Amino acid sequence: MNRFTLINDLLVPAEQASIHVSDLSLQRGYGIFDFFKVINGNPVFLDNHLDRFYRSAARMRLQPVIPEDILRKKIAELIAANSLKQSGVRITLTGGYSPDGYTIGHPNLIVTEQPLNNLPTSIQEQGISLITFPYQRQLPDVKTIDYLMAVWLQDKIIEAQSSDVLYHYDDSITECPRANIFMVTSSNVLITPANNILKGVTRNRVLEIAAGEMKVEERDIHKDEIYEAREVFITSTTKHLMPVKLIDGKIIGNGTAGETTRSLSKKYNQIVYGK
Amino acid sequence: MNRFTLINDLLVPAEQASIHVSDLSLQRGYGIFDFFKVINGNPVFLDNHLDRFYRSAARMRLQPVIPEDILRKKIAELIAANSLKQSGVRITLTGGYSPDGYTIGHPNLIVTEQPLNNLPTSIQEQGISLITFPYQRQLPDVKTIDYLMAVWLQDKIIEAQSSDVLYHYDDSITECPRANIFMVTSSNVLITPANNILKGVTRNRVLEIAAGEMKVEERDIHKDEIYEAREVFITSTTKHLMPVKLIDGKIIGNGTAGETTRSLSKKYNQIVYGK
Repeated sequence: MNRFTLINDLLVPAEQASIHVSDLSLQRGYGIFDFFKVINGNPVFLDNHLDRFYRSAARMRLQPVIPEDILRKKIAELIAANSLKQSGVRITLTGGYSPDGYTIGHPNLIVTEQPLNNLPTSIQEQGISLITFPYQRQLPDVKTIDYLMAVWLQDKIIEAQSSDVLYHYDDSITECPRANIFMVTSSNVLITPANNILKGVTRNRVLEIAAGEMKVEERDIHKDEIYEAREVFITSTTKHLMPVKLIDGKIIGNGTAGETTRSLSKKYNQIVYGK
Repeated sequence: MNRFTLINDLLVPAEQASIHVSDLSLQRGYGIFDFFKVINGNPVFLDNHLDRFYRSAARMRLQPVIPEDILRKKIAELIAANSLKQSGVRITLTGGYSPDGYTIGHPNLIVTEQPLNNLPTSIQEQGISLITFPYQRQLPDVKTIDYLMAVWLQDKIIEAQSSDVLYHYDDSITECPRANIFMVTSSNVLITPANNILKGVTRNRVLEIAAGEMKVEERDIHKDEIYEAREVFITSTTKHLMPVKLIDGKIIGNGTAGETTRSLSKKYNQIVYGK
């Protein structure tokens, strides 16, 4: 099974997809990306992901960027060529080949596709555990390639026998490195942070679903507040809604997927799988 | 004139030096580097740079790393092959080819060499101007490839008709993106920050030179304090000692290279050029 990768406007065999070492991603960690799910050849929430991709590019002064109609066509070609049942597509735009290793060059576009399995239902039932860590992502509203701290923290997560890290800034919790966080209070109010975070496509969809059903607040959440939540879950393109059973070793609610999480999760999955 | 680059243990023509897009530098901005000057084939302060390179690698959990004796031999081969009069050598170690685009893989080593011109004497005389910006580098004691903010700020520097940015954390100034900062007080005390910075090889050499000659303090410097300095200069491998004449539009001292800066600069250059 030979997969393909798009490098700028060229489909190449995935194993041959390389860029020159003068690219500003390798030299200075400078680039942006976006990531979406593809189910049976159909990209999920593509409009939202492309909107954010072009916003990220503009914020990082990456230009020229491939026009959206051509990018859509190229993505469709890639998906057709790879013909995967379920996959994740990552669109990366780097700082390009820099003459002096510091100044932004002509951006390089790299679109890769990887097969994606469904998460085991057991994890969705049992939930995951998080540890908090004081850290604020730089340029948090942009989906940059900067995961230096996240990758570096992986050892600490394993040591703590945890699933992921939850960042907080001063005493307000913000986000996981690749997911947004939500809490449900004892009076069934859904709360999610609004500041100093990347607003995920899944996060925004969940807010839309919840809006008609319950009280929703987008605001800062104090670290102590989340320990007392009735339910906590995180959201991401790959994880959908994932219950959180433990934060810093403290049991959240009754330690399993709560009723509100299940209900929102079911509705979100229905949209994604078109059922 | 064909130049070479070292990719892992192989010398390749510089224009063909590429890495696969699954490398963690491109995927997640994860990697470290070091950079030293080479004059007439002789690396300057190589021991110090290699010490820091191996410290950075260990801190970032990059392993295995090429043994030091082999790295030294490979660097010598690269320098001999390129045969440049004066150059800068950059040793980069990335997070490697990651199976899942997130977990650290087997690191990739990339050693590039570029010709380096002397800075014009006029700049060394006149000095440069800085603007301050509130920002704290993540993992500041490690020479990571993370220059996301520095590259992003280039437009603001140009707008302000300035030469570079000076970071501060709370009200303490820390460092420039690629240089350390020093101030000289009216009573001829040399002060440089000690916390939340990368301790440059040039910085440490200047401290050694100054130690026998004047009072030296390594401590936090308040933003307001530096405006009142008699002299300010920055230090780096390429810039050596560079006088600062303006910070945030405020004239430092008499607005030209001060006496202490000149004296330390002369002694530092003598060591570098072996005169």
